[in-house]
Amino acid sequence: MADPVIVAVDAMGGDNAPDVVLEGVALALSQREDLEVILCGNAEVVEPFCAQHERAHAQVTTEVIAMAEHPAAAVRSKKDSSLVVGCRLVKEGKAHGFFSAGSTGACLAAGTLVMGRIKGVSRPCLATVIPSPVRPVVMCDVGANADCKPEYLVQFAQMATVYAEKVVGMENPQAALLNIGEEPEKGSVFAQEAHKLMAERLDNFAGNAEGGDILAATYDVIVTDGFTGNVCLKTIEGTSKTLFKTLKQVLMSSLVSKLGALAIKGSLKSLMKQISPDTYGGAPLLGVKGALLVGHGSSNALAVCNGVLTCASTVSAGVSDIISQAVTKSNE
Amino acid sequence: MADPVIVAVDAMGGDNAPDVVLEGVALALSQREDLEVILCGNAEVVEPFCAQHERAHAQVTTEVIAMAEHPAAAVRSKKDSSLVVGCRLVKEGKAHGFFSAGSTGACLAAGTLVMGRIKGVSRPCLATVIPSPVRPVVMCDVGANADCKPEYLVQFAQMATVYAEKVVGMENPQAALLNIGEEPEKGSVFAQEAHKLMAERLDNFAGNAEGGDILAATYDVIVTDGFTGNVCLKTIEGTSKTLFKTLKQVLMSSLVSKLGALAIKGSLKSLMKQISPDTYGGAPLLGVKGALLVGHGSSNALAVCNGVLTCASTVSAGVSDIISQAVTKSNE
Repeated sequence: MADPVIVAVDAMGGDNAPDVVLEGVALALSQREDLEVILCGNAEVVEPFCAQHERAHAQVTTEVIAMAEHPAAAVRSKKDSSLVVGCRLVKEGKAHGFFSAGSTGACLAAGTLVMGRIKGVSRPCLATVIPSPVRPVVMCDVGANADCKPEYLVQFAQMATVYAEKVVGMENPQAALLNIGEEPEKGSVFAQEAHKLMAERLDNFAGNAEGGDILAATYDVIVTDGFTGNVCLKTIEGTSKTLFKTLKQVLMSSLVSKLGALAIKGSLKSLMKQISPDTYGGAPLLGVKGALLVGHGSSNALAVCNGVLTCASTVSAGVSDIISQAVTKSNE
Repeated sequence: MADPVIVAVDAMGGDNAPDVVLEGVALALSQREDLEVILCGNAEVVEPFCAQHERAHAQVTTEVIAMAEHPAAAVRSKKDSSLVVGCRLVKEGKAHGFFSAGSTGACLAAGTLVMGRIKGVSRPCLATVIPSPVRPVVMCDVGANADCKPEYLVQFAQMATVYAEKVVGMENPQAALLNIGEEPEKGSVFAQEAHKLMAERLDNFAGNAEGGDILAATYDVIVTDGFTGNVCLKTIEGTSKTLFKTLKQVLMSSLVSKLGALAIKGSLKSLMKQISPDTYGGAPLLGVKGALLVGHGSSNALAVCNGVLTCASTVSAGVSDIISQAVTKSNE
C-alpha cells in the first residue's frame, strides 16, 4: 500500500466548529483509506475523537484565533493556536497539507509566514473553484493580494493552471484575464500590462474574459487581482442568493405557483446543489510549500469533508512540486 | 404649460436600430406630453418618422459610428455622425439631453469631448440603476474610467447621490464604497484611501459594501472605480443569465417539473421583469453639461422608450445644475 496522505485539520476553525469539523473529518476518513488526519485543537475536542478514530491523531493546542482578529497579528502572537500549529506541522514535514475553515485572513497569513512560499513565487494566491452549473471554473486571486503588480498575474495563471489540471481534472486548461473588453488594448493600465505579459509568457493564454464569462464557464481558468477577484466572487454568491430568495417569494405568492413549486422542488434542489460551494469545500492558497485549503467560515460537514479530501488530492497530485517546477522554468 | 423638454435621440445607435429606436421614441412621445424629440440619423430614417409625429423633429446626419470603432477616434473623425451631432445639439442648447443605444465607448467620448464636463468635475462617471428584485440600487462608475484616483470616487458618490435622489426617487440616499471587507482598513491601498476621503468629505457615506450587497440592495448607492464596476455589472448580468438558463433546462428535464414550470410561468415572468435592465433603459454619464443617457446595445423598444423618458426626467430634475452646485460647494 502507498504511503498515507497526512492532512492536518483545524478542529477549532469555522462558525460551526468543532462539531461540523469532527463530523466532516469522520466522513473524509471513511471515504479515503490512505488518509490520516492530525486534528489540531483543544484537548477536550480532539482527544475523544481521536480515541475513536484509528487514522486520526490528536495534536493538542491551547489557543484559538477568532474570526474577527487581525490576521497577521493573531498569527504572530498565538503560536499555539490550532491554525498556526497546523501550518507548522506542514512546515516540519509532519503533515503534507492543512485544512481550516477558520479566519481566511489568518489562514493566508499563516500559510505565507509559517508554511512559507515556494522558491521563485512572488506572491501566493487564493484560488477557488467557482461552482458554475455549466462546469467548474478555477478563479484566482480571490483575495490574498488586494494590491498586485501585473507580473504577479502571470504566476497566478501558472499556478491555477496546475491546480485546474491536477486537482480539478481539466484537460489542457486555458487561462483568461478578467478585463472589461475583449480586445488586448481594453481595460485599466494594469490590465493592459497584465494582458501583454500573459500573452508573452503563457502557452495557454486565452485572452480577455469579462464578468459575464465567469459563471457561463467560457474559460477554464480566470485570473485577476485579489481585489477584483474577491469582489467578483462575492458578487456571484450574492447574486445567486438574492435571486433564489426572490424566486422563493414569487413562488409562494399564489396558490397555482405554490403547486408548481411543489412539482419543481426536486429540480430546484438539484440546481442548488450544482452551484453550491460545499461541493469543492475550500479554496487553495497556491504557491506555499505543502497544501493549504481554506474553507468557508459557514462550512457544513460535507464542505469540511470535501475540503479535507481536496487537500489530500492536492498533496497526492504533487501540486506544490509541479508549481515549483513551472515557476522555476518560467523564471529561467 | 411649462416649456418642453427637448431630447435628442440617436436613431442609428443600437443593435436593432433604427426600427426599435423609432418605436421607442413613438412610445415615449405618447407617454410624456411636454417631450419633444430631435431625431438624429439618415434622411430616409428620420424624415418619414418626423413627418408623422408632431413633436419629433428631424436632424439629418450623414455618418454612423459602428459598435466596433475606436471610440475617441470615431468621435473625432465622424463629425456628422448621429451620435456626435446629438451631443452637439446639447452643447449648442438646441436640445437639453441626448439618448443613444450606440457604442458606449463613443457615447462616453462624445459626452466628455463634445458636451463637455461640468466645471469642477474631475471625471464624468457612468452610473447605472441595478435592477435588483429588492429595490433599485444606483452604482457607479460602471465603465467610464478604468483608471481612477481615490479622490474621483468622492465626486462619483456626490453625483450618483444627486441622480439617486432626483431621478430614481430615493429619499436621503446613502453611498457606500465597494470593497473587500467591512472595516475601513480593509482592501487595496486605493480602496483604503478612497474610504478615508469619502468618510471625510461625504455627509451620506455609509462605509464599505461588498459584492454580495449589490443585488441584495443593502445600500442605495454603490461607488467604485470604472474597472471594478464594469466587471461587477457584467458579473451580475452574466450570473442571472446563466442561472435562469440552467433553471429552464432543469425544469424541462422531467414531465413533473415541466408541469410545475407551466404553473410558475407567470411568477417567473414577473421576476424576470423585476430584474430586467430595460426598466431603466439607460445609464447616465454624470458630470457632463446637459443629460446623456447611454442605452444597452441590445435595447428593445421598451428600453429605448424608458431611456428617452429617463433622459427627460434627468433634464426636468435639473441634475446637471444640482451636480454643479454640489461639486462647487465641495471644492470650496
